[in-house]
Amino acid sequence: MKIALVGAGNLGIHLYREFVIHPEIELVLWHQNKALKSTTEEGVPITSNLNDIPDGILCIMAVPDHTIASVTQQISEKAFVVHTSGASSMDVIIQKNSGVFYPLQSFSSTRSVSFTDLTVCIETRKKEDLHTLETLAQHLKARPVEMDSAKRFTLHLAAVLVNNFTNHLYVQAEQLCHSHDLSFDLLKPLILETAQKIQTLTPNDAQTGPAIRKDEKTISKHLDWIQNTELKKIYSTLTTAINKTNGNKKL
Amino acid sequence: MKIALVGAGNLGIHLYREFVIHPEIELVLWHQNKALKSTTEEGVPITSNLNDIPDGILCIMAVPDHTIASVTQQISEKAFVVHTSGASSMDVIIQKNSGVFYPLQSFSSTRSVSFTDLTVCIETRKKEDLHTLETLAQHLKARPVEMDSAKRFTLHLAAVLVNNFTNHLYVQAEQLCHSHDLSFDLLKPLILETAQKIQTLTPNDAQTGPAIRKDEKTISKHLDWIQNTELKKIYSTLTTAINKTNGNKKL
Repeated sequence: MKIALVGAGNLGIHLYREFVIHPEIELVLWHQNKALKSTTEEGVPITSNLNDIPDGILCIMAVPDHTIASVTQQISEKAFVVHTSGASSMDVIIQKNSGVFYPLQSFSSTRSVSFTDLTVCIETRKKEDLHTLETLAQHLKARPVEMDSAKRFTLHLAAVLVNNFTNHLYVQAEQLCHSHDLSFDLLKPLILETAQKIQTLTPNDAQTGPAIRKDEKTISKHLDWIQNTELKKIYSTLTTAINKTNGNKKL
Repeated sequence: MKIALVGAGNLGIHLYREFVIHPEIELVLWHQNKALKSTTEEGVPITSNLNDIPDGILCIMAVPDHTIASVTQQISEKAFVVHTSGASSMDVIIQKNSGVFYPLQSFSSTRSVSFTDLTVCIETRKKEDLHTLETLAQHLKARPVEMDSAKRFTLHLAAVLVNNFTNHLYVQAEQLCHSHDLSFDLLKPLILETAQKIQTLTPNDAQTGPAIRKDEKTISKHLDWIQNTELKKIYSTLTTAINKTNGNKKL
């Protein structure tokens, strides 16, 4: 399967690493805005010109959401152009052969992520193109799930909650620890158990703590203790939400 | 080591299960508010009378924070009385031999939790009592960390963030999924990766998503999409906090 890859951000780099290790995939070109070299170490040609992308090829765009429209306009009308965004509709792409290949994962440049068993949401404008994206996902050992743009958008929003927002709670917890000369490492087993718990329990059954117990005394003590304005808002907002959402849970 | 256990809630049940499997520990009595049987299946006597707790014994209280003071007043002055709360000061206990044994973990009745390598924050009023709590933690294969009440309070607050609040984000994500006919299972690998990521990356380095990228278009689209008032508040509060806290991160 011949592929051109556009983008060299966090996701672009991860896709590059995956594409070059699977023998079923032939990466024929990698587009980067700033092409400092003409080929990669693995021998893949690099270009900074979107016109170089050959006709009829599957072109995977790993570019920021707000640039998808302008990038797609510079690519041959005869390419099969696919974006990798959770929040953008497929309709942003002007090519007749178009689609979406959205891996449901958080990619950081300094951490390798396995595509094995990873959910990849796929969608194509033409039904006959779907098989190509299914095959690509299978080559990566990922799990393709066909999904329209509205559902994918909802799933992306849910991913923001469980990844971006959760990670920010880690940021706040780390700051709290450091400001009181405590090691953040102390919390790491609890962080893992929190994620492992809902692999088998429902999130509702897994809920514990002062908010669900309506332990007003502890909640007041916590709020009095918090100095940081943002953290105070987070604490109040989430405590209220737990009370309203899980409030009828039997304890 | 002879122990009496007070309380049969989530933590009390978990401690009971631990105490009966370690041969170094002899559980001599289990206090329950409603003692339906006189002994447990493992032969441990059950009582509903706190006066039954013998003098000079280590008494572990796994009771709600607001009841610690009244429970401690009903126990012999000559017992070594220890509570298991993160948010309560050691000073709530009236006995001269007093302390705290706080396992940093989230306990649900329907899931077994390993004490192996678990952080247990310990504190005692008398220095010579510290060794007893260290030994208890070691019998359970847990990691005792000596910590005063102020630091333990901060760590408990941080635990609320990374466990209770994170779990509520899972609750909200599950509701979003179900309201759009999506399986919550799709998110489980991402939830695990989020927790695994910060075992090696700092939370700051692990932060990704629309808020840290200041992707206002996606943020607006998400907010327009959210129907639930509580979720809308959570989304705005956390997005603002990410912007202010991680705002200077290089992307």
